[in-house]
Amino acid sequence: MKPILFIVAPGFEEIELAAPVDILRRLEIPVVTAGLQGRTAEGAHGVPVTADMLMVDVDPEQYDGIVLPGGPASWTLRDTPGVLALVRAFHAAGKLVGAICAAPIALEAAGVLEGRRVTCYPAVKGDLKSAAEVLDTPAATDGNIVTGRGPGAALEFGFALADYLGCAEKTPSLRRDMCVC
Amino acid sequence: MKPILFIVAPGFEEIELAAPVDILRRLEIPVVTAGLQGRTAEGAHGVPVTADMLMVDVDPEQYDGIVLPGGPASWTLRDTPGVLALVRAFHAAGKLVGAICAAPIALEAAGVLEGRRVTCYPAVKGDLKSAAEVLDTPAATDGNIVTGRGPGAALEFGFALADYLGCAEKTPSLRRDMCVC
Repeated sequence: MKPILFIVAPGFEEIELAAPVDILRRLEIPVVTAGLQGRTAEGAHGVPVTADMLMVDVDPEQYDGIVLPGGPASWTLRDTPGVLALVRAFHAAGKLVGAICAAPIALEAAGVLEGRRVTCYPAVKGDLKSAAEVLDTPAATDGNIVTGRGPGAALEFGFALADYLGCAEKTPSLRRDMCVC
Repeated sequence: MKPILFIVAPGFEEIELAAPVDILRRLEIPVVTAGLQGRTAEGAHGVPVTADMLMVDVDPEQYDGIVLPGGPASWTLRDTPGVLALVRAFHAAGKLVGAICAAPIALEAAGVLEGRRVTCYPAVKGDLKSAAEVLDTPAATDGNIVTGRGPGAALEFGFALADYLGCAEKTPSLRRDMCVC
C-alpha cells in the first residue's frame, strides 16, 4: 500500500492531525505529512509541528489518499489552488479523499462533494452546497470521501479512515488498546 | 493565573499532548510546553513537535501545575531525576500534578501517589503500588493529582484538568464547540 498524505497548513487543529495520523500509523498504514507553506507549521493552539516533506514536492501517483485536518487552516486550504488541484487528482483516481471539521469546505471548492453524504463542523454546514446531505454524525464515509465533524470527533474520523483503508477487523481491538471511552 | 507546564519528552503520545493543551488554551488557561532533551521531540507516532522552552530552564515558582503526557516517553520521564524533582516541587507546593497513560509511573517514582485514587494505562496498573486505588475511569481527580487512562481518553483528561483549574462551568459548552461525541 502507498502512503496516505496529510496536509499540514498553518492553523491546523492539532488534535485533527494527531489522532488520525496516530491511528493509521498504529495500524501500520503508511502516512506522510506534507507542509503547505514550509516544513514546520504552528497549529491553531500554538503547537508547532514539523512535516515529513513539502506539499509542492508531492507526486500524487505515489500516494493512496489525501487527508485535510481542519481548524483555521481550512480557509487557507480552500484558497490554495495547489491544494484543490491535489484533491481533484486524488478524487479523479478514485483514491481516498478525507477532511475534518471545517476542511470539507476545501473539498467543496475542489468540486468533489457533488451528491455525497458528508459531515463537517456545524458552522460551515451551509457552505457545502453541492453535497447531497450534511449529517451530524462524528464521521461519514460515502465512497472515497471520508469526513469528520470536529476535534472532539477526531478519533472517530481516524477510525473511519482506517476502516475505509481495509482495517475494519483491527479497529475494535485498537479502540480497546487506546482506551477509547 | 500562572501557566501550566507540559513536559515534552521523546516518544510522547501525540494525542495526549495535543488534546489537553488544546482544551486548556481554548479556555484561555496559559500553557507552556517544555522539552526534556531539546526543544523538538518526536512523538511516539513520528510527529515532531517543538516545545516553547527547555525543561532545564523551568523555575517551578512561575507555574501553577505540571502535566506529563504519556506513551513510550513515560519510562524516560520516570528515569529522569530532573523530572521527579520537578514533580515533587509542584506537589510539595500543593499545585496541580497531572499525568496520563503510562506517565503516572513517573508520579509513582516521585512518591506523590501515596493513598491517592488514580487512573492509568491498564498495562502499568500494577506499577502504581502506593496508590490507594487504581480506577478504570477515563480520568480521575484526587486532590491536586489528575490522571488519565490513555490516548482515547485524552479529551476527558483535558476536561478534568480544566475542571480542576476552575473552568467547570465552561467545559460543557466547550464540549459542544469541539463536537465531542
